[in-house]
Amino acid sequence: MKVGFQGELGAFSQQAILQFLGARARPVPHMRFDQVFAALHKGAVDAAAIPIENTLHGSIYDNYDLLLKYDFAITAETNVRVVHNLIAPPGMSFAQVRKVYSHPVAISQCLDFFGRHKRIEREAFYDTAGSVKMIMEQRPPGGAAIASELAAKIYKARILKRGIEDDRQNYTRFFLLEPAGSKARASRRGQRPWKTSLVFSTRNIPGALFRSLSALALRDLNLVKIESRPLRGKPWEYLFYLDLLGRREDEAVKNALAHLGEVADFLRVLGSYRAAE
Amino acid sequence: MKVGFQGELGAFSQQAILQFLGARARPVPHMRFDQVFAALHKGAVDAAAIPIENTLHGSIYDNYDLLLKYDFAITAETNVRVVHNLIAPPGMSFAQVRKVYSHPVAISQCLDFFGRHKRIEREAFYDTAGSVKMIMEQRPPGGAAIASELAAKIYKARILKRGIEDDRQNYTRFFLLEPAGSKARASRRGQRPWKTSLVFSTRNIPGALFRSLSALALRDLNLVKIESRPLRGKPWEYLFYLDLLGRREDEAVKNALAHLGEVADFLRVLGSYRAAE
Repeated sequence: MKVGFQGELGAFSQQAILQFLGARARPVPHMRFDQVFAALHKGAVDAAAIPIENTLHGSIYDNYDLLLKYDFAITAETNVRVVHNLIAPPGMSFAQVRKVYSHPVAISQCLDFFGRHKRIEREAFYDTAGSVKMIMEQRPPGGAAIASELAAKIYKARILKRGIEDDRQNYTRFFLLEPAGSKARASRRGQRPWKTSLVFSTRNIPGALFRSLSALALRDLNLVKIESRPLRGKPWEYLFYLDLLGRREDEAVKNALAHLGEVADFLRVLGSYRAAE
Repeated sequence: MKVGFQGELGAFSQQAILQFLGARARPVPHMRFDQVFAALHKGAVDAAAIPIENTLHGSIYDNYDLLLKYDFAITAETNVRVVHNLIAPPGMSFAQVRKVYSHPVAISQCLDFFGRHKRIEREAFYDTAGSVKMIMEQRPPGGAAIASELAAKIYKARILKRGIEDDRQNYTRFFLLEPAGSKARASRRGQRPWKTSLVFSTRNIPGALFRSLSALALRDLNLVKIESRPLRGKPWEYLFYLDLLGRREDEAVKNALAHLGEVADFLRVLGSYRAAE
């Protein structure tokens, strides 16, 4: 089973794939998120693991937009604890580090480290694991990277400092996407509660969002996340992405979706899946 | 009057300053958004113009987070129509263009153009206007930029193609920030309705957001935008930023704020200002 993800081997997404499917899945790296979605659309991969939000950085909006553009089912979610490590080629000491390459979000999550070591420059790179690959292949003078332990292992680099992130409450939530309508390969079993994700737009009238949320609240359904994105072609109007506790097949969820369908201009269910730990 | 903004002279933010305050304001460029906020905090500038959302790209989340970190008042808003132009040094023809530098968001808003001209490479640069400054100073071979007409004028460059953005519905909304408690220099007059922006967090209980929005809906107050951001230190909990029609001093708004204060864990009003055209 081939699972597409964004980044180089060793990315946090590869950890997510391991948590989703274990060692039976083969991770297939892609440069950009839109390429991951396109690969799943063409059938070049059987599933895709995409990050959707990080507890410090917030939502990954590109992926919200791509969820709408394509028509896949979310079949699982998982949370990956993000630990940032300072990684260098073997033989380089910490005192020799002059420049650190990594994804801008990883860099922005290690500002205390850079504050304590002002001699060290930061340089944006397209990917955390890719920055390890690059420093190992090109060996820029004094060049180190910030990435996962898995990336250090894959590229045979050395961890100089573990856990240099500012905030330990650093988790990224991932979705597993599979073709809509096919039988999900992600596990549907377990004791964890179900979650359902959906996207809708409202008519541009006062109280429209309140009415939409009442479809859930009147049935005691717990809204666990709401995200808004601009509606293309309608300046200052928005799409809303909701995550609620419950399964599409539950009576209360079915009724809430029917009610929401009455008040929304547009509604699509993105999937029901077992909530992550 | 000095007004801080992010970017080089010629940025769309400079256009916003012109719309806010006319020619009497002196735009003061900064490299990053956090530096703009810090300058206003220190009193190095009298006000700051910051982009808060774009109709295609969505919200500028860094600035939402900085609004919370600092305690300024939003005293005005304005919308700038974003027109992207292909700009080159005088003497360069369109056929000679090989590489285009600009901010990644500007590049991502001109994908049709790059699709039609596959010979042209794209290179991310930290700023749109800054990319014009760079191609004029450094003259990289075949190097052009994407930026505003104002940037072309300031750096004495030439517009090769006007309006190369994919979507004409491209507007950026800006806030003018001033020190809280001082008398606002932005105009409070006019016929446009008032808007109030606020930020709050809810207790993590079912229906909490619905209850919060009911404080507005029960008073027929129109919610025009809602944005959520992660709450630091509390994984999977959120802050909500709301914009509603009405002024802080209005009876209905005062009552809604009191009601919201009862159901919210935390509440701060960010300002009342005249809505943009």
